Amino acid sequence: MSGGRSGTTLLVLDAEPLPRLGRLTGRVRIEHADESTLAERLPRADVLLVWDFTSHAVRHAWPGEGLRPRWVHTASAGTDHLLCPELVASDTVVTNARGVFEQPVAEYVAALVLAMAKDLPRTWALQREREWRHRESQRVAGTRACVVGSGPIGRAIATTLKALGVTTALVGRTPRTGVHGPGDLDRLMARADWVVAAAPLTDATRGMFDARRFGVMQPSARFVNVGRGRLVEEEALAEALAKRWIAGAALDVFEHEPLGPESPLWDVPGLIVSPHMSGDTVGWRDELGAQFLELFDLWESGRPLRNVVDKQLGYVPGH
Amino acid sequence: MSGGRSGTTLLVLDAEPLPRLGRLTGRVRIEHADESTLAERLPRADVLLVWDFTSHAVRHAWPGEGLRPRWVHTASAGTDHLLCPELVASDTVVTNARGVFEQPVAEYVAALVLAMAKDLPRTWALQREREWRHRESQRVAGTRACVVGSGPIGRAIATTLKALGVTTALVGRTPRTGVHGPGDLDRLMARADWVVAAAPLTDATRGMFDARRFGVMQPSARFVNVGRGRLVEEEALAEALAKRWIAGAALDVFEHEPLGPESPLWDVPGLIVSPHMSGDTVGWRDELGAQFLELFDLWESGRPLRNVVDKQLGYVPGH
Repeated sequence: MSGGRSGTTLLVLDAEPLPRLGRLTGRVRIEHADESTLAERLPRADVLLVWDFTSHAVRHAWPGEGLRPRWVHTASAGTDHLLCPELVASDTVVTNARGVFEQPVAEYVAALVLAMAKDLPRTWALQREREWRHRESQRVAGTRACVVGSGPIGRAIATTLKALGVTTALVGRTPRTGVHGPGDLDRLMARADWVVAAAPLTDATRGMFDARRFGVMQPSARFVNVGRGRLVEEEALAEALAKRWIAGAALDVFEHEPLGPESPLWDVPGLIVSPHMSGDTVGWRDELGAQFLELFDLWESGRPLRNVVDKQLGYVPGH
Repeated sequence: MSGGRSGTTLLVLDAEPLPRLGRLTGRVRIEHADESTLAERLPRADVLLVWDFTSHAVRHAWPGEGLRPRWVHTASAGTDHLLCPELVASDTVVTNARGVFEQPVAEYVAALVLAMAKDLPRTWALQREREWRHRESQRVAGTRACVVGSGPIGRAIATTLKALGVTTALVGRTPRTGVHGPGDLDRLMARADWVVAAAPLTDATRGMFDARRFGVMQPSARFVNVGRGRLVEEEALAEALAKRWIAGAALDVFEHEPLGPESPLWDVPGLIVSPHMSGDTVGWRDELGAQFLELFDLWESGRPLRNVVDKQLGYVPGH
């Protein structure tokens, strides 16, 4: 054993194998937990790696006042699945996967925007019917987008949409240069051709896209959610589409994931459903593993961590 | 009657109403022709407007040495549907719709590239099955494209792909700054993730994408044709997809259009079929009509025309 913090126990909450962790062999004691064993094993861990970011087990298993990890890292951008009041109140440091998902999510949003503008879903439906039916499609350059969420992912989305000639406004928690505050949201949504939800899930953002807000949008406008499912009132969105308040929508995230086959969302007309994959490009697990190892090196040697989450805000504060 | 060329007869080869032509009422005598009446009416026309750019009637009806229009305008980027040897040899000026289709086609190519990278066709298929199946997708930034065709459309495609972080090489008839010559094509195709055909149809480009060229491509690469159908040997492409020489393709143009329901291309695995719509965004007919009227004003007043096609090359020479 060597380094600043020898004798470390790393607990990994995982549902599937984690790449590159072998590099830590001999440096730390590695334990694994699933949802059923997490509560029992948490108190004796120094570090918790939340590799299975689909699990909410940490919220329930967090030991409160007792022994607890000094550092929790989640292999995700969002932290809503682990930030219980006891963890927020504690002196435990939380870090996230900032840096891995920005470019992929931005490209995914561009893919959805362009696919909707060019009517690709209908093209696929017509191809299945072997039917040649020419339609006019829409130019993307010159349209207007409102991106809600001014963190690294929202900013990457804005950069990519601007590169396609889309006039893009960013909305964040606090107004600053280049970022509108929440007070501008309704006005920006009312004139946007594209409204993109890329905000963290917090008490301030939960359910923010509701019937009233869809009612503000233009009938020709479309809505995309790549943030968290609970930003959106799903029934209100389905109704807004059915009533043609808006022209289309794409959801990559949902209130309940995975979406069960019984969900009515699968066949809402004008709604594109994808399985929470916007940020997950080939090699993403390797990137997440490498990122954790870099942070672990910092932690072990007592240097300051990067990607430290403001637990009150629920994300890494931006610029 | 007023202007430099009073008494003008404008003949319109049209299959559907042409917007804005009413502005010419009283300035010119407007006649209309379809494929069956074109040969009879061409000799007494001063100007021919090929509004129905899907028709090849001009090639067959052109009057050769006799009386003929002094100017032919086609409401299309391509000119292969009208340039017969007699028209090429004549002193008749040919103009095209350069300027209308560039941005829409570039966006359409970006839509296809992103849709393929993000596996959207499979997402739609899974949505129909109400099946939640997470997959990894591909980053577009950092990939390589080879765009064949260095005219305004090819250059717009390159600009848009570069804006998405794609390293893009342009291939044209003659090498110049920023444009590779045909001698580089195989080498560039061999290392491209995306090969985009956007060349005019000429004797030099007909059938250029054949079995040998698909064999040069990487198994992970994809092919897109937004130029003319006959650039591609369709059977060779279907075979390249079936044999997994390449990973996917999208055709917006075909040897025979419209593609009949009996065509085997509709259900080639990995092939996206769309009905020659890449350049046709809302308002395109208005733009084409307005463009012709601008050119007509120039012509009527005896000023030099824009968008003049080099009839030997088959397109407006670029920069």
